[in-house]
Amino acid sequence: TIYLVTPTYARLSQKVDLLRMSHVLRLAGNVHWIVVEDSQQKTRLVEKLLENSGVPFTHLVQETPTEMQRKICKVVDPRQGCPRSNLGKPEQLWKHPRGVEQRNAGLAAVRAINPPNGVVYFADDDNTYSLELFRAMRSTKKVSVWLVGLSGKMRYEGPITENGVVVDWHAGWRPDRPYPLDMAGFAVAVSEILRRPELKFDARAQRGWLESHFLQSILKDKSEMEPIGMDCQCVLVWHTRTEKIELKEESKAPSDPSIEI
Amino acid sequence: TIYLVTPTYARLSQKVDLLRMSHVLRLAGNVHWIVVEDSQQKTRLVEKLLENSGVPFTHLVQETPTEMQRKICKVVDPRQGCPRSNLGKPEQLWKHPRGVEQRNAGLAAVRAINPPNGVVYFADDDNTYSLELFRAMRSTKKVSVWLVGLSGKMRYEGPITENGVVVDWHAGWRPDRPYPLDMAGFAVAVSEILRRPELKFDARAQRGWLESHFLQSILKDKSEMEPIGMDCQCVLVWHTRTEKIELKEESKAPSDPSIEI
Ligand SMILES: O=c1ccn([C@@H]2O[C@H](COP(=O)(O)OP(=O)(O)O)[C@@H](O)[C@H]2O)c(=O)[nH]1
Ligand SMILES: O=c1ccn([C@@H]2O[C@H](COP(=O)(O)OP(=O)(O)O)[C@@H](O)[C@H]2O)c(=O)[nH]1
Ligand SMILES: [Mn+2]
Ligand SMILES: [Mn+2]
Repeated sequence: TIYLVTPTYARLSQKVDLLRMSHVLRLAGNVHWIVVEDSQQKTRLVEKLLENSGVPFTHLVQETPTEMQRKICKVVDPRQGCPRSNLGKPEQLWKHPRGVEQRNAGLAAVRAINPPNGVVYFADDDNTYSLELFRAMRSTKKVSVWLVGLSGKMRYEGPITENGVVVDWHAGWRPDRPYPLDMAGFAVAVSEILRRPELKFDARAQRGWLESHFLQSILKDKSEMEPIGMDCQCVLVWHTRTEKIELKEESKAPSDPSIEI
Repeated sequence: TIYLVTPTYARLSQKVDLLRMSHVLRLAGNVHWIVVEDSQQKTRLVEKLLENSGVPFTHLVQETPTEMQRKICKVVDPRQGCPRSNLGKPEQLWKHPRGVEQRNAGLAAVRAINPPNGVVYFADDDNTYSLELFRAMRSTKKVSVWLVGLSGKMRYEGPITENGVVVDWHAGWRPDRPYPLDMAGFAVAVSEILRRPELKFDARAQRGWLESHFLQSILKDKSEMEPIGMDCQCVLVWHTRTEKIELKEESKAPSDPSIEI
């Protein structure tokens, strides 16, 4: 079983992002979807979506502590409103990495399930997943890695291999990081999570360093990683984002707030 | 069978858009995917994707005539290059609606298949589709309509009904158009296409008027339309876009052009 840990929060694209993700997970089969809402309480939107997804799931809630929220509400999301504490504090912008507390809640959930085997993958709600990705990562013994498309302002990012061993990285920004890869670019064996009860993401990590910090607790060197999809030089997942839209025409005609989007 | 007519062209998100679409179509079942590439010849990328999609398909090519292309290549797409003819002609920007010739090629393909029954739906590559949409549109007798999310700079656009009859429209921009709805917001019975051999989209139509022109050839009034998903007030499809990215870091590290994204 692949345990997918997915942080999610109220944004205009939340439903479409989770919906598209549910489709590929349903096709993949033999997965368990741990969805962690960044909100005060579980929402009906996510609850219904999971119930209708046809995918086995665990639905959790873990709000990001106020001081770690780095959103500035100049534009107020009509669905979410604006947390008072954030108004007019521009220094919080881009300060903290996103989804950290949620992924840690997901790790705790995996430990509670305590599966005899399997793989853990940190799968953001808005990325694009191939079926081949899930097929390939099931073989993970310790930590597997692969190419991530449209990541880091590059066509792709990921390992460079020689004779099946990771020898270098294709990365633009700070290639000197210990593991210069995207959250979407690796999976970890459940056993590695279970044997390290303290292992988690560090919310104080700077943006871009989260993955490196985490992987350094598991690995001594990149040569220990298991590169997958490199035989075909295949990009298996893409760091996509759904375009943000401004609801400029909303003022012209009253929309029914009870209609869910 | 639902005949989906999907225009597509080389952009950074082409593969991810088509891939996510293929997932929901595979789950929907009993569809036939008519994919029309806006390019000089069929590409290996689309060909492979369709072959691996698990969805019955027809793969066509129909290039938009140069004078109808409205893209200005200030930023050159590394995958596509820039058609010479477009360089420095800013007056072409936003002039013509997109995907018109491709949808017409799709209509011709439906006529060639000449199915005894079924439904035709114009499904852009980058939208987000629910499984309920495909379930619901199979009942289409003439023209069915429903709510489209994240469309027209509104939360949603679509019909307003009374006792199951379309009486008005929820639309921001030019609600006075005969049929102020999105391309993603309606489906047409195959029989209506077959009985009108000349019916097609008008490439000279102004942006926003394409749907109205087309539907005026089939319908006398909105009351003839079959609203679906209105019992649950459900948005069945969303006019999403995949965020465009700039490959700013590409210059720092050479990426392997043979790796497909
Ligand atoms: O305040 C936030 C912002 C983001 N996320 C989640 O964290 C992950 C990464 O966020 P995002 O996709 O916005 O980051 P980006 O793609 O821009 O790196 C996604 O699953 C989001 O749903 C969250 O839980 N709370
Ligand atoms: O030059 C073009 C531009 C667009 N399209 C296709 O036409 C449809 C609508 O285009 P797009 O999604 O860019 O339009 P928008 O969502 O911005 O209305 C999509 O299926 C595109 O792949 C095309 O075939 N050629
Ligand atoms: Mn994201
Ligand atoms: Mn589109």
